[in-house]
Amino acid sequence: MILYGHAMSSASYRVRIALALKGLQATSVLLDLRAGEQRREAYVKINSQGLVPALVLDGGAVLTQSVAIIEYLEEAHPLPPLLPRAPLERARVRALSQAIACDVHPLNNLRVLQYLETELGHDKAVRDSWYGHWVRLGFAALEDRLVRDARPGRFCHGDSPTMADVCLVPQVFNARRFAIDLEPYPCIVGIDAACRELPQFQGAAPDRQAQAAT
Amino acid sequence: MILYGHAMSSASYRVRIALALKGLQATSVLLDLRAGEQRREAYVKINSQGLVPALVLDGGAVLTQSVAIIEYLEEAHPLPPLLPRAPLERARVRALSQAIACDVHPLNNLRVLQYLETELGHDKAVRDSWYGHWVRLGFAALEDRLVRDARPGRFCHGDSPTMADVCLVPQVFNARRFAIDLEPYPCIVGIDAACRELPQFQGAAPDRQAQAAT
Repeated sequence: MILYGHAMSSASYRVRIALALKGLQATSVLLDLRAGEQRREAYVKINSQGLVPALVLDGGAVLTQSVAIIEYLEEAHPLPPLLPRAPLERARVRALSQAIACDVHPLNNLRVLQYLETELGHDKAVRDSWYGHWVRLGFAALEDRLVRDARPGRFCHGDSPTMADVCLVPQVFNARRFAIDLEPYPCIVGIDAACRELPQFQGAAPDRQAQAAT
Repeated sequence: MILYGHAMSSASYRVRIALALKGLQATSVLLDLRAGEQRREAYVKINSQGLVPALVLDGGAVLTQSVAIIEYLEEAHPLPPLLPRAPLERARVRALSQAIACDVHPLNNLRVLQYLETELGHDKAVRDSWYGHWVRLGFAALEDRLVRDARPGRFCHGDSPTMADVCLVPQVFNARRFAIDLEPYPCIVGIDAACRELPQFQGAAPDRQAQAAT
């Protein structure tokens, strides 16, 4: 398998964690997103969206969209599971995952911040406010949900990591990078810390990718 | 079941279609989003995100996040299926769904357009450019993907509607509302038309909800 991604991309980071939790290996190809490598013909032939990640399977099939990739990995490699068994429990994990993947991350990724800068002419202070607004809104709701219907265990849903943790850790990393105060979200911070004790999360971290230095 | 939603909300519209395709009934409770009813205590107790939709099951369980709700409906009520059987095919349908649910819709929903207006002071022309930018980017990639790895059949994936169509139709409705020229996306337009021939899509349409007049 080949994983096209970027060290700092949250969505790539999610797939790296999921692959590691499943014990799967993929050759990592890191694109230079700031230079627009993801929009060049060679990559757009692989993923017409011009976004990372894309996972190319050994048979040549191309998978895109990080959450769809993780669902595929779950179906093709069921153990260890990243979703619980019961439909209602699965719905909870998926909702937590999508509260990040649909409602926080899309507003704060590179292409959006670039649009605010280049098309709308906003300076760093405005972009930082924008970033902070959506991440705080998302984290406050997530914290509330995690506390309100708490499950016993160290992770978002019980005592082993699920897709929700796979989505949470990259978003927390990203928030720290933007110097967001995480003190109002002790449950999120605790889960993030528990995840980062695991070697699979550690190996997937941005600073462990070859691109980290660039 | 009770579905909390809004006539024009894409994510609510998705769930209405999915329920109809599954032959399920839910009592519809429509919130006044422009008046901020989704952020009032009564609703935030149901969904801490303060977003629609939320589906409350007869047993009292609350499901949030439209794609997670659809995945739940698929697991709890497998027929007719909204996902194909084979993992790679399921991955394609999920990727098409998420290309809308993660990469187009979150940038163009009400709260984001309101932020551009109230926090950043942008006029309607700038907000319309913003809207058009993300929907055109998303639709161009989607059109390319639909054409490139086309499946025989009238819908996004074969001859019966899937979760991808459930996500596509509300986004096309939304784009038309913002007067986006859809001529460059004949495949999308054709699939949308095929879907809207089905009574399940028709009954879920915004103009068929009690709120349509408001």
